[in-house]
Formats: sequence, C-alpha cells, structure tokens
Amino acid sequence: MSYKNFPMVPRVIFGRGSFNQLSELLSPNRLSNAAPFIFLVDDVFRTEINVTSRIPISYQDRIVYVSTKEEPKTSQVDALVEDIILTSKERPSGIIGIGGGSILDLAKAVAIMLTNEGNAEDYQGWDLVKNKAIYHVGIPTISGTGAEVSRTTVLTGPTRKLGINSDFTPFDQVVLDPEMTNGAPKEQWFYTGMDCFIHCVESLKGTYLNAFSRTYGEMAYNICKEIYLDGKLSKKEAQDKLMMASWHGGMSIAYSQVGVAHAMSYGLSYLLGTKHGIGNCIVFNHLEEFYSEGVKLFKKMVEIHNIKLPTGICADLSDKDLDTMIGIALSLEPLWENAVGKNWKKIITPKKLKALYIKM
Amino acid sequence: MSYKNFPMVPRVIFGRGSFNQLSELLSPNRLSNAAPFIFLVDDVFRTEINVTSRIPISYQDRIVYVSTKEEPKTSQVDALVEDIILTSKERPSGIIGIGGGSILDLAKAVAIMLTNEGNAEDYQGWDLVKNKAIYHVGIPTISGTGAEVSRTTVLTGPTRKLGINSDFTPFDQVVLDPEMTNGAPKEQWFYTGMDCFIHCVESLKGTYLNAFSRTYGEMAYNICKEIYLDGKLSKKEAQDKLMMASWHGGMSIAYSQVGVAHAMSYGLSYLLGTKHGIGNCIVFNHLEEFYSEGVKLFKKMVEIHNIKLPTGICADLSDKDLDTMIGIALSLEPLWENAVGKNWKKIITPKKLKALYIKM
Repeated sequence: MSYKNFPMVPRVIFGRGSFNQLSELLSPNRLSNAAPFIFLVDDVFRTEINVTSRIPISYQDRIVYVSTKEEPKTSQVDALVEDIILTSKERPSGIIGIGGGSILDLAKAVAIMLTNEGNAEDYQGWDLVKNKAIYHVGIPTISGTGAEVSRTTVLTGPTRKLGINSDFTPFDQVVLDPEMTNGAPKEQWFYTGMDCFIHCVESLKGTYLNAFSRTYGEMAYNICKEIYLDGKLSKKEAQDKLMMASWHGGMSIAYSQVGVAHAMSYGLSYLLGTKHGIGNCIVFNHLEEFYSEGVKLFKKMVEIHNIKLPTGICADLSDKDLDTMIGIALSLEPLWENAVGKNWKKIITPKKLKALYIKM
Repeated sequence: MSYKNFPMVPRVIFGRGSFNQLSELLSPNRLSNAAPFIFLVDDVFRTEINVTSRIPISYQDRIVYVSTKEEPKTSQVDALVEDIILTSKERPSGIIGIGGGSILDLAKAVAIMLTNEGNAEDYQGWDLVKNKAIYHVGIPTISGTGAEVSRTTVLTGPTRKLGINSDFTPFDQVVLDPEMTNGAPKEQWFYTGMDCFIHCVESLKGTYLNAFSRTYGEMAYNICKEIYLDGKLSKKEAQDKLMMASWHGGMSIAYSQVGVAHAMSYGLSYLLGTKHGIGNCIVFNHLEEFYSEGVKLFKKMVEIHNIKLPTGICADLSDKDLDTMIGIALSLEPLWENAVGKNWKKIITPKKLKALYIKM
C-alpha cells in the first residue's frame, strides 16, 4: 500500500480583519516593480468600496473583476492568462484570488497556467502539471467550498468537468478573515455551507476514509450542525466557525474523496450550468439511499432556514441530454469507488442515475 | 490588531506503514552524494531491527542514536551540530528525527543550527532565527507532544528552558505512521497522550483562544477522552486517532498558548530534569483551581489506567531551589497571560506557586 504525500497550504493567517495585513504578506513576494500582483476579484465586489479600497495596489498591480454567474471554465482560465501575459511587462509576482470557490479555483488555475504550456484543459486530471505555479494567495469571501485548502481546481472544459489535481495547485498563502463573509446573501451562505456539510458526509461515509480524514471531517460536520441546526451561536461566532469548518472539510478530502452528490452535481453543472453549491443540494436531497442520516439532517436544515430548493430542473430534458449528464457523472470513477466500493459498477448503472436525475 | 501568519508543515503523509515510503520522500531532496541525510534516532530503537532495517541509508548517510533519558539541551544540540559538521564532507541534505518529542525537537534545532551562527542558546526565544533551516523531517514514534507540527523546539539552556520559536522551525515533511507507536511502553503512552490532553485544556481555557485554535483543540480533546476515558476503540483505531489528536492539538496552539501546567512543568524540568510528559501530569493533578473540569477528567484517566503518579518530588527542596523553579515558571509570561489574563501578575505570585510546588 502506498500513501499520498499531501501538500498543505504552507502559510495561513486567521482573524477578523486579517485582510488588512495583505500588503505585509505580499511585499516580500514581489519579484520586481515590473512584475505585478494580479488580483482576481469576484465581480460582486466591484461596488464594495470597503473591500476594493483595502486591496493594496502598487506599481503595475491590477485588479481584474471576474463574473462568477457561471462555473469556472478552462476557456476562461486561458483568456485570463492571455490577458495577463499581454498586459504585464514581466511574469507576475503573484495571483491573489478574492471571492468564493469559483474565484479561488480560477486563481489557482491561472497561477498554474502562467508557468505551464498549452491550455488549461490539457491539465484536467491527476498530476499532469509539470512546473511549479507562480505564487498564489487565496482569500475566501464565503465559507464552505474548501477550495482554499484543496489540491484541486475544478473547471468545466470542452469535454468534461474535472479538476486540475496536482501538488502545485494549493495556495502558497491563505487569508482566513471571517469578516470578509459579512456580505454573503443568505441563500448563498446556505448553499455554500452545505457544500461543506455534504462533502463531509461523503468523506465520512466513504470507503477511502482513514483517521486523518475522519478527524477533520467529523470536526467540520459537527460545526455545520452547530450552525445550521442548533443556531445558538452569535453571528460572529458562526462566521468564524464556518470558515474553519470549510478549512477542515477541505482537509478531510485530502485522503478520501467526495461521493454520489458531487458526481451527479458535476453532471448538472456540465449540462445546465447549475452552480456547484446549489447543484449539490438539489442532488443530495434525493440521496437517502446512500446517506440516510445526512439527508435527514439536510432536510431539517432546509426547513429551518426556509430554503426553496429548485425542483423539476431535469423534467424537460431529452434522453440525449440525460445521457450526457449520466456520462459526466459516471466518468468520475474515484468518487463512485469511494462512495460505493470497488464493485460500484454493479450497483451504479446509467438506468439508476437516470431514475435519480428525473426526480430532480 | 495584528495576526500571526502561521507556518504549516508543507507536506504530510499519513498511514499505517507509510514509514516504508521514506526513501521516495527523501530522494528528491538529496543535494549531492557527499551531502548526507542524518537520521537522529531515539536510542531505544538501537536494537529494534524492524525500525533500523527500514531506515534508507545511502552514500554518506548516517544514523546517530540519541539518548532521551534527559530533556533536550542546547549543549546537546551544539554537540550534535559540531559532530555533523566534522564528519560530513558537505552540509547535510537533511536531518530526519525518528522518535518522541525530545528527538523531534532536537532534529528541528540541529537543522536550524546548521545554517545559523553561534550557539543554540542564542536562539531561545521568539523569532531570533535569521536563516532558513536545512530540510528536516519529523517521524513521531509516540503520540501527544505536537512537536511534529509546532513552530517551536523546546530546549533546556544554561539559564532557562525555552523554545526556539520561529517560522523556520517547523518540519518540511512529516511522516505520520501509527504503526511506529507500536512499541511505546504503557506509562509513556499515557504521559505523552496527556501532554496533548493538557495542552488542549490549556488552549481551550486560555484567553488567547480563537475559532482556529478552538476547533483544532476541541477535536484533539474529544479524541483524548475517547481513547483514555471511553476506551472502546480497537488498538489500531486508538493508535491512528491518537496520532491525529497530537497533530490537531499542536495546531491548536498555533494561535493560542499553553498555560499553567506547562509553565510550572518547565520549572520541574529545569531543576529536577523531570521529563516533560510526566512533569505536566504531576503539575496538572494539582490545578483544579484553574482547570476544574479538565483536572477531574484527568484524575479519572489516571485511575482507569492504574497510573501511579510520583508524589513528594519537591518535598526536600531548599528555598533556593524552589525559588529557581518559581523563577523559571514565572519567566514564561505568554503562558501566564494566556492562562489568567493580562493582569496575571496580580494573581500569580511566587508565594502561590511555592504553595503549589510543595504539594507535588
């Protein structure tokens, strides 16, 4: 048996207001005055002066606002990289992602593609990246995805939705400032937090689980219950703890994998463009068969927070579309093996997935 | 308010038998055939062929067996560094510590002192190290100290017991192989595990606590209870989980601090040479006033595992000796501030510590 040598984020700062220390974190990493820091920032912050005015811009540094209405695409990464190369005198000193999972994944992918030839789609898979990425920093503004700590960056390419999984993917620096999540709309707060809850369930119920993943996963799972079920924490405490749950939930997947909800949600995203957080929730709501206790708790949380999950999103799909979704979902073999075991192909058939999809 | 930018161990491998992958982990880090890897190994393994035969020795690599009957000393670090410099053709490729907290701390300190001038005692304190240490790897063979993940290396110097706390202290690579803890004697298993339990109590009850430290601390605390109180886990499960508790417990101190037990235990070690794990237990047993719930649980664990804590170790000490111990304990200001608050000097007087010490 051979174990993975897991790369961890080598530097993390945690604290309310720690975003204000960004300048002192970046300065020692500036390569030259002509080598800019590029800030990839979620477009929703364009008018948030409280955030933008605190982004430390010097010399040739640039803020690039990026819409996250759609899930991140390989073509979007390629376009960003081309733009950065064309507008920078020298290779950038670093890429700083400020936003949710989409922005964090884009920042990781852009940092990789600035030192690796070809197109982003060439690197979708496991351990295909050849060269170290440039210095990259992740600053989450919503909690739950685990993108701040993971060794993947999930992208929709021309033929599949799949991450760039590599030892060079993790951020060099993460800033965990719970105040940055102040402005998250309630529904997004719910769906993104549920991303954490759901991947903890998938990790804890998976066949790949070991003590490393279990201890991180249980911690994050319990925090999600404390926040979304018990609801006794103050707003600040809940923000602080949810940011840590996201971190620990991401660490939980280091040695395990996600499972059925993520695999099927990738199918929804690929075909319908469904965003990751809400897609997970739409799928997970129908997975009692695989995760009975988790789904029971999830339904309670949906009720407590008065969330209206979309329904009927697959009702009008053609057989061809359904087959496309099923194909995407089934291609994620490690997820199914983790969820159901080595013989998963005997249990998880296209027919079974079709029956599940048309309920959604 | 300014927050610490915490350095994390950038690479970790976890799994039963992962020690067998040591060669593949080290190889890419070999600088040249004349730049050896130096393995600092606890002397108790000298006759453990199952361990020694699996240490991957090539070229000029050397195993140095180190006795851990005493707590690690700055003079011991200096002697090891001198020996390594005199016997190696080139600066070593790396230092690999295989053992408990003493060996791990020695490995970290030796790696630092190979690139920094002067003597180890010059660096006891906070952020005094100037140059990056050489590549260093930690492989714990007993669980609880957190030395595998911390940014300190605690040493007894000529004038004090104090760590070399720096961003260069943490290991570059940690190997968490729970099978390596197979041979730990029961009493040592208990005392070292209690090191974890006690520093979690100190962190969780401290004034420095934030959500980062709290979530790690609670996880480790709960695992300790599961192992030492409930006792329902299989031997393997307990080994696996205790190794993770040690890791998480160490992370918990990143943003907080230890407290009363550690401060007073340092005094015992300095004067009497009491080993850290047992010293913590001897002190903690008398700290109901500060940690009532923790001490209650601790006493139960002592009873369940039929541990005979030494008593009367301070009974015959002179006033001068007691004053020395009290001086060492009181010098650890951050620990007291964490434990009791900014006004700790009003509460923690030499008289109070004397009354506690003479009960031990």
